[in-house]
Amino acid sequence: MTASLKDKLLKTRLTERLGIRHPIIGAPMAFAAGGRLAAAVSAAGGLGLIGGGYGDADWLSREFRAAGNQAVGCGFITWSLRKHPALLDLALANNPQAILLSFDDPASFADRIKQRGITLICQVQTLRDAERAVACGADVIVAQGSEAGGHGEKRGTFSLVPEIADLIAKQSPTTLLCAAGGIGDGRGLAAALMLGADGALIGSRLWASKEANVSTAMHNAALAATGDDTIRSQVMDLARKLDWPSRYTARVLRNSFIARWHGREAELQSVADEEADKYRQAWAAGDPDNSNTFVGEVVGQIREIEPVANIIDRIVLQAAELLGAKGRYLEMVPVEARSSER
Amino acid sequence: MTASLKDKLLKTRLTERLGIRHPIIGAPMAFAAGGRLAAAVSAAGGLGLIGGGYGDADWLSREFRAAGNQAVGCGFITWSLRKHPALLDLALANNPQAILLSFDDPASFADRIKQRGITLICQVQTLRDAERAVACGADVIVAQGSEAGGHGEKRGTFSLVPEIADLIAKQSPTTLLCAAGGIGDGRGLAAALMLGADGALIGSRLWASKEANVSTAMHNAALAATGDDTIRSQVMDLARKLDWPSRYTARVLRNSFIARWHGREAELQSVADEEADKYRQAWAAGDPDNSNTFVGEVVGQIREIEPVANIIDRIVLQAAELLGAKGRYLEMVPVEARSSER
Repeated sequence: MTASLKDKLLKTRLTERLGIRHPIIGAPMAFAAGGRLAAAVSAAGGLGLIGGGYGDADWLSREFRAAGNQAVGCGFITWSLRKHPALLDLALANNPQAILLSFDDPASFADRIKQRGITLICQVQTLRDAERAVACGADVIVAQGSEAGGHGEKRGTFSLVPEIADLIAKQSPTTLLCAAGGIGDGRGLAAALMLGADGALIGSRLWASKEANVSTAMHNAALAATGDDTIRSQVMDLARKLDWPSRYTARVLRNSFIARWHGREAELQSVADEEADKYRQAWAAGDPDNSNTFVGEVVGQIREIEPVANIIDRIVLQAAELLGAKGRYLEMVPVEARSSER
Repeated sequence: MTASLKDKLLKTRLTERLGIRHPIIGAPMAFAAGGRLAAAVSAAGGLGLIGGGYGDADWLSREFRAAGNQAVGCGFITWSLRKHPALLDLALANNPQAILLSFDDPASFADRIKQRGITLICQVQTLRDAERAVACGADVIVAQGSEAGGHGEKRGTFSLVPEIADLIAKQSPTTLLCAAGGIGDGRGLAAALMLGADGALIGSRLWASKEANVSTAMHNAALAATGDDTIRSQVMDLARKLDWPSRYTARVLRNSFIARWHGREAELQSVADEEADKYRQAWAAGDPDNSNTFVGEVVGQIREIEPVANIIDRIVLQAAELLGAKGRYLEMVPVEARSSER
């Protein structure tokens, strides 16, 4: 595989602007995307991002150290960062390749990031969010569709990406665009480029790697699942007492916990203290049935937990082959031969 | 446009099997897709389908006549057809090019269609549905994502299409696959092919045509909307007293009717008789605020109501250009030049 990969590189505005070999950004998944995963993504030719999470400065420092000399970036949950703004200083002190902000208005942090000359990536879930990201000077916009694992919103990747591509073309043509949500192989990357993106942000497929901080039991639950087996819900955030704005839900695998609480949110809130303890213990144990496996609809296309380098090589090779195989679809037919067609 | 279009045709298994020029099927949208729209889609090189609707035999007969000599097919809402099975006889008597079944188990009708040698198209919303469609011998499976206008389910187009492509490759490799939901231009068609589809079923973009049975006021509402302005709901079916199975919702534009009733479903049911009269009157008047405009997230990419031929020509030309422009992405770089890259 490597030999032909070396001969067929995907070059886009994203690879050129970020100085990376492949148009792939690793999603900054809270907990799962530590320094080891981010470094592996960058080493494989993409841009790896550490998941900044919910305010644990010690964890974040440790994960930047774990990335070693590999150039990586960091992603934050914007509304949570507002409660723990020192995390941004910590990240900036580690010379990140980029800072990604997602979920809520990025405006209050954008200037500090851009003044440092660091690439600002804004992940958005709606056209309105994208307008806000353009306004605050995002270098890269990630259009995240509802297929994605973890937190997100309702719009689908397939229509969100071209609509935001049109917005960018009109208002800020030098801004780059990545697609996120549902991209797990080269078909997805090739489709993202066709829809007008310059690359892809990939979460679940990298979550399902050797380098991700994920329990074996959760990995096994994902391997056994189809794309029909996920659901968007808010019950995990009620159980974890996280103040997610109500517009966001998280996509996870259906399990006992979801069966018990989804649709009974008010009741869960009334017993949140007790449930929070149980949830924390189950999460710490990596229990896929009494906490949650955060993964997107693309889970149905994941059949093996592999090293990141293998995953990225295969995605790029497959995308390049699909994009190069125009003979499959395009045929030059003489005009006269077509007049008899239906 | 026509000159270069004639030189660059998209050929797929779908165009070859169905004997059509372009890999595009027109969605059988209830009410909007009459004989005029279906005939225009077929005349433009795709396969047009009349929307079989909810049981009005006179309407269906009239619309087959309106299609004239143009070869068209017909699509049915499976659970509704079970209440009005004579509609299938009526359609079969009109020599349809294909019959599409969507929403609920197609098994009870599949044999009659296939025994007549007529192409059976099964539209599905989940992987499980697709397994059922393969089992009953579908010639074409349409994977419909949640982005689509009108009735559907929750899974997104971007992950549903490749997952069903994998199922087909494993279980029934001669079955064809079309993507539906979010496809409004050549970017969408090219992306659908990259994801593993043989073509696309297009609804909203053809709804927004001169030949569709849609009021000018609803067309204008769509032209003013972005993809953020749609919602999936069940209130229109409660108001119309249609017995849609609870797994299906319909995507429509947000409006006064949605603001009044979405989230107040039990209350709406308690006053359904009165509301049904009001809804019917508003619908008959083509009122986009007190009935509903059935359109998908792709509405944000629609800027003009045009003749079907223009729409299809442009989609095919743009897809062919995107698929043919591999030089945009693929670069042959000597191996030695790459060793210094990051």
